[in-house]
Amino acid sequence: MKLTPRQLEIIKIVKENEPISGDSIAKQLGLSRATLRSDLAILTMTGLLDARPKVGYFYTGQTIEPLLYEKLYKVQVEELCIPPLLIHQSVTVYDAVTSLFMYDVGSLYVKDDNDELVGLISRKDLLRSAISNPNTDKTPVAMIMTRMPNIVTITADKTILEAGVLLMQHRIDTLPVIDKEQPKKVIGKITKTKIMEYFINSGNDIDKEKY
Amino acid sequence: MKLTPRQLEIIKIVKENEPISGDSIAKQLGLSRATLRSDLAILTMTGLLDARPKVGYFYTGQTIEPLLYEKLYKVQVEELCIPPLLIHQSVTVYDAVTSLFMYDVGSLYVKDDNDELVGLISRKDLLRSAISNPNTDKTPVAMIMTRMPNIVTITADKTILEAGVLLMQHRIDTLPVIDKEQPKKVIGKITKTKIMEYFINSGNDIDKEKY
Repeated sequence: MKLTPRQLEIIKIVKENEPISGDSIAKQLGLSRATLRSDLAILTMTGLLDARPKVGYFYTGQTIEPLLYEKLYKVQVEELCIPPLLIHQSVTVYDAVTSLFMYDVGSLYVKDDNDELVGLISRKDLLRSAISNPNTDKTPVAMIMTRMPNIVTITADKTILEAGVLLMQHRIDTLPVIDKEQPKKVIGKITKTKIMEYFINSGNDIDKEKY
Repeated sequence: MKLTPRQLEIIKIVKENEPISGDSIAKQLGLSRATLRSDLAILTMTGLLDARPKVGYFYTGQTIEPLLYEKLYKVQVEELCIPPLLIHQSVTVYDAVTSLFMYDVGSLYVKDDNDELVGLISRKDLLRSAISNPNTDKTPVAMIMTRMPNIVTITADKTILEAGVLLMQHRIDTLPVIDKEQPKKVIGKITKTKIMEYFINSGNDIDKEKY
């Protein structure tokens, strides 16, 4: 929903003068009461203004733009995907752990000699290996990773909602974003962290737009 | 914004007969065109209906209820917090790792003899210890945990938006929800996973309500 400049002006007037009668608003705008009738109806119907009989209009404190479902949930994965940390499958578990801390990431993507995605390693995969294996400096990640095709992937044209559903259903933290034509080519990753940040940032932006 | 029964009826009629003129809608409802004027104005202003001159009204496919900011972001932490897995500070790192896998959680909360929160352990804390320490079965978690007061906490009356901002700012996965009067008493936890699931589920619910 998009408000007209006149409706925005009305909200501003009400906010500064509440409670204020419809007649007074019309006067301030240099318009007739009848001209404003439909604007005031819309502003009260949408809950932006509150009208109390014999008192006048109040500003309810609601945001100007109701968060539209389409706008929030239909953002494409493409817009939120970030580069993954790719390591070769011959890297040792010990070195993989080092990379995890060095680059402060939550998961590692594993590639083969052709730069194709062959596996994925989570913090829990590394932890399982580190706690039970004294030779992490001799064990290649290929031995402990989750391997294609057991990895859930997504393409860049899917929505945030679809990505979130996959992360929930499979109880995972990260989804490789793959090329539609070359399913072994990773073009990014979309993570639980990124999705949460997206929703929180969207909420914060609206908080700031509030007036 | 809440639509009236008459507005819902109008949407239904338009959906089934689009394009349809205002006169025809009025006829189907047994009302005068003038009576419907403000309803039609509101439905087109909110973007639920589209009006094309000399053609008629169309249904735009938008959801009936724009996701209101307040509704989505102002839910209290209380409603989404879940029980944490609490272990005693004398438990070994090895046993803590076992619990992490056994109960399939992402973090462990640490208590003392008085059942008060004294620390928090993440997967990365355990991984750091496991990779560099061959004696995880002799090391108590008290030696590796993040300790109070270096733990970010929240109270149950705060909003999801506030919880999300804290998780983002401190780059953490979990927030202990503590009692307002007794700040060492944990009453639950709110996690990145839970917040993401909340937003995704809200989006899915609206998807289903769509008509």
